[in-house]
Amino acid sequence: MTTVEPPSWQSLRAAEARLINTGVPGVSVGNAVFESIVTGLRESLLRLAAPQQAQALGVPPVVSRGLLERVGYIDGFPNLVGTVYSFTGSGADWNRLQEARAATDAAWYQEQQISEVALLPATCHHIYPLFEGVDLPGPAVLTAEAHCYRHEGTHELGRLRSFRMREFVRIAAPDDCIRWRDDWMEQQRAWLTSLGLETSVEPASDPFFGSAARLMKATQREQELKFELRVPVGDGLVQAVASCNYHKEHFGEPFGIRVAGEPAHSACAAFGLERIVLALIAAHGDIPADWPQHVRSVLSLDDAGVA
Amino acid sequence: MTTVEPPSWQSLRAAEARLINTGVPGVSVGNAVFESIVTGLRESLLRLAAPQQAQALGVPPVVSRGLLERVGYIDGFPNLVGTVYSFTGSGADWNRLQEARAATDAAWYQEQQISEVALLPATCHHIYPLFEGVDLPGPAVLTAEAHCYRHEGTHELGRLRSFRMREFVRIAAPDDCIRWRDDWMEQQRAWLTSLGLETSVEPASDPFFGSAARLMKATQREQELKFELRVPVGDGLVQAVASCNYHKEHFGEPFGIRVAGEPAHSACAAFGLERIVLALIAAHGDIPADWPQHVRSVLSLDDAGVA
Repeated sequence: MTTVEPPSWQSLRAAEARLINTGVPGVSVGNAVFESIVTGLRESLLRLAAPQQAQALGVPPVVSRGLLERVGYIDGFPNLVGTVYSFTGSGADWNRLQEARAATDAAWYQEQQISEVALLPATCHHIYPLFEGVDLPGPAVLTAEAHCYRHEGTHELGRLRSFRMREFVRIAAPDDCIRWRDDWMEQQRAWLTSLGLETSVEPASDPFFGSAARLMKATQREQELKFELRVPVGDGLVQAVASCNYHKEHFGEPFGIRVAGEPAHSACAAFGLERIVLALIAAHGDIPADWPQHVRSVLSLDDAGVA
Repeated sequence: MTTVEPPSWQSLRAAEARLINTGVPGVSVGNAVFESIVTGLRESLLRLAAPQQAQALGVPPVVSRGLLERVGYIDGFPNLVGTVYSFTGSGADWNRLQEARAATDAAWYQEQQISEVALLPATCHHIYPLFEGVDLPGPAVLTAEAHCYRHEGTHELGRLRSFRMREFVRIAAPDDCIRWRDDWMEQQRAWLTSLGLETSVEPASDPFFGSAARLMKATQREQELKFELRVPVGDGLVQAVASCNYHKEHFGEPFGIRVAGEPAHSACAAFGLERIVLALIAAHGDIPADWPQHVRSVLSLDDAGVA
C-alpha cells in the first residue's frame, strides 16, 4: 500500500503519502506528502524537547570506520555494517583496468580498496567523539537527525536500510542518565499516543550477531538498558518506532569523557521517522488530509498547507 | 578558522558558525549556528523557487549501484564513487572469521562483499528513475536535498566528501530545458550576490577521470552544458558553490523518458550548502549576529532567533 512500483511519477502529485522503492531493498524516496509528515514529526519532537535546550547539530550519513571499531559496533553488529570502498589508483591504473575489462570478465570495482569511511549506523555515534577527553562541568544534552544505514537481511515493510533517526542524547552522571531516560520513555509513549498510535513499551535488546549474541542480549535486558516503543506499522507487523537507552559507560569510557570529575555515562532517546509515518498511515490511512484533526494538529499539517 | 580540532565541545554553544572535522578528511559536523545558516539557505532557495511549484522529494544518501553504472557515472568518475560493502555470512561464518583473526592478522572486513548499494554522488540521480518509461504530458519540475558523497583525493577547505546538495531539476523539451537553465543561472548569480558574495559565472566541465577525460571536458565546454557559480570560500580559495547544467538526453535516454511524445531532455540547478556557508563566513566573518542586516534578512536569521 505504501510502496508503489515504477512508473511512480503519478505518486509525486498524489494526495497520498508514498514511500517509493528505488529498486534496492530498503532504499526509498518519499513523495511530497510523505515528506510533509516527516517535517511535522521533526518539528513536533523539537517542540516537545524544547525545555531541554539541546544543542542541535548537523551530522553526515557517514562516519569514521575507526570509530565503529572503537565503540564495539563491529563486534556486536558486523552484519549490519556498511563500509565504503573506493578506487584509489591513478588515471593510468584505471585505463589499464578498463583494457583488462574489455578482454575478461573483470568487474570495474575489482581494484577498489576499503576506505576509512563507513555508513553511520546510529545518529549518536557522531556526538560522543566531540567530547573526547573533556571533563564537562555538568550534563550536556544534544540532538541531531541523520540518515542511518543498516544492511538489513530482510525487507518487510518498515525494514529500511536507509532511514532517518532523530536522537536526543544526554551525557551526565549515572543517576541523572537513568532518570532522564525514564522521563523520555513516558514522553515517547504519550507523544506516540497523541498521534493516535497504539503503543506498547517493552524491554528490548539490540540485534547482536555471532557467538556472543545470546549473552549480550540477556545482559542488556537484565540490566534494563533498552526499551522500545512498538506500534503497528501495517502488513500486520508491530515494530519499534522509537527507543530509549541507557548506555552506562559504553560511550563515555572509550572517549575518556568525564562529568564533574567522574566518568561520564550517557543515554539517548531515538525516533525512526519513516517508520512513524508508516505507523500513521497504518492507523489513519494514507491521505493526511483525512486524518483526525488532533493528529494533524500535533504535526502542524494545517500550518504546512497540506490540503 | 572554520575547522577546529578536538576537544570541540566548546564550539557547540559558541556564537561562531563551526564545521567540526570528525577526524576523517571531508567528513564534518555542523554546530547549531552553522546549521541555522544551512536552514536559512534552504528556506531562501525554496522561496526563490516557489513560483515553479516544484515537487519536493525526500531522497536518501545511498543509491542503487546499478543506477550509477547505467547513467555512466562509473565511466566518468570512478575515482569519486563510494560503494558499500557488507558481511553477508552467517553467525557461524562470523565466528570462524573471529577465530582466524585471533590467530592471524586477518581484518574483520576481509570477507565483506560488494552490495547493490553505492553512495549518492548527486541528488538528482534519485529523480530520473521515478520517470522510467513515462511519457509526460508536459514539463516536470522537482526538488530535493541530499547528503552526497564523493571520495575526493584532496582535503583543502571546502573540499568535503560528504556534503548537502539542494537541486532543482526540470525534465522537458530541449529548448525549454536550456531556457530554464539559463534563467536559473541569472537567479543563482543574483541570489549569491544578495548574500554579499563576490560571484563569477564561468563555463565549466565535470572532473572526468582516465583516458576519455580530455575529450569529455572539451565537449562539455564546447556545448556550454555546464556553468559554475564561483565565490571565495576562505584560505584564498575560489570554489564552485552552485552550478547549472543542461544534460541533453543523458538521463532521459537511459530511462526512456518522453515529454509529449518526444525524447526528454533534462537540466538542473544545484547548490552546495556547506560551501555557501563557508563563503558567507569568508565574506562576513564567523558570527552571523554580526553579518549585514540585508544578508541576515535573506536568510531569515532574525526569525530563527539567532542572536
